[in-house]
Amino acid sequence: MKIYGDIQSGNCYKIKLLCSLLEIKHEWVPVDILAGDTANPEFLGKNPNGKIPLLELDDGRCLSESNAILNYLAAGSELLPTDTFALAKVQQWQFFEQYSHEPYIAVARFIAKYLGLPDNRRAEYEAKQTGGHKALSVMEKQLADTPYLTGDSLTTADISLYGYTHVAHEGGFDLGQYPAISAWVNRIQSLDNYIGMS
Amino acid sequence: MKIYGDIQSGNCYKIKLLCSLLEIKHEWVPVDILAGDTANPEFLGKNPNGKIPLLELDDGRCLSESNAILNYLAAGSELLPTDTFALAKVQQWQFFEQYSHEPYIAVARFIAKYLGLPDNRRAEYEAKQTGGHKALSVMEKQLADTPYLTGDSLTTADISLYGYTHVAHEGGFDLGQYPAISAWVNRIQSLDNYIGMS
Ligand SMILES: N[C@@H](CCC(=O)N[C@@H](CS)C(=O)NCC(=O)O)C(=O)O
Ligand SMILES: N[C@@H](CCC(=O)N[C@@H](CS)C(=O)NCC(=O)O)C(=O)O
Repeated sequence: MKIYGDIQSGNCYKIKLLCSLLEIKHEWVPVDILAGDTANPEFLGKNPNGKIPLLELDDGRCLSESNAILNYLAAGSELLPTDTFALAKVQQWQFFEQYSHEPYIAVARFIAKYLGLPDNRRAEYEAKQTGGHKALSVMEKQLADTPYLTGDSLTTADISLYGYTHVAHEGGFDLGQYPAISAWVNRIQSLDNYIGMS
Repeated sequence: MKIYGDIQSGNCYKIKLLCSLLEIKHEWVPVDILAGDTANPEFLGKNPNGKIPLLELDDGRCLSESNAILNYLAAGSELLPTDTFALAKVQQWQFFEQYSHEPYIAVARFIAKYLGLPDNRRAEYEAKQTGGHKALSVMEKQLADTPYLTGDSLTTADISLYGYTHVAHEGGFDLGQYPAISAWVNRIQSLDNYIGMS
């Protein structure tokens, strides 16, 4: 199987981390968004939404959306619960990530780290801080109660949220204010087969 | 079970529609966001993210995020495939909905229908049109190939996307440009036990 991605993107890194933890063999195909790689007809044939990460199976079937890819690759492993309610909780956190977390924290990081916080994006950057801290507070509350987001063990929900949370400081978010999140970050970094972003 | 929601919200209506299609008995608890219902301590105790829809089971366990709730309620029914790849495709469309569709189409609709398109939101409204049409084009491409988003039969992915797509005209999107989407909307409206938004 092939995974199209850019390791500096948290959404792509999630897949890289999961594959390492579960020792899933794959070919990583580096994609350069700024060079137009996601906008060319061949790529759009694989993902009409023009985004990475993208998984391509050996038979040619393709799957997009980082969190859908994680759950597909983790099916049958200890990282994905089989109990219906537990599985729904994993998805709850993953939809939370895409709707209430990533659009603030990943975008603030992009503006600060990749664009160098230009004046014409500063208002947007500031606005992202509020939503980002709200999302971190929701995580902090849960992680003060349980070691992982859905309970006692690591699931794909943790991988989904870890992607951008562990680099949130690059978007101006000080994780020092969030002791339970900080402990969870350390917990994930101590896992066997853990790999970092670069 | 109780479902906390506001029927005018597409995210809440998704759940109402699914419950009707599958004849799932529930108590609907109307929530008024503007009156502060989602910001009071009791509600935040059930969903620290302060959003509706919210599902509360009889034993008190709570589940948030519309698409996670849909998949939980549809588990074991014909609306949720059991094949791993088919299930991943359902999730792909649902994450697409939350990331690339709802933030454009639902927000444009909110600005136009509920705020009456005030001058100070007009630039934002215009900006949402581009992203909304991009999302509709991605759907159109799939629905020109298959009657439902993941293939030959209705799944929760269709319910997720139907929520805001069928009222997209209220956000300024003319579905007349999208014949395959229009046919799909009609297909869903002809289902047994279909109910509309209000
Ligand atoms: N919801 C998607 C988001 C993916 C996404 O935004 N990818 C970015 C890179 S981090 C991308 O491909 N952007 C190119 C574009 O949108 O044109 C997911 O979780 O996979
Ligand atoms: N990702 C969430 C979005 C839910 C959402 O945005 N709900 C709105 C009503 S449509 C809400 O409760 N807003 C109140 C708030 O955010 O304070 C889902 O799919 O359930």
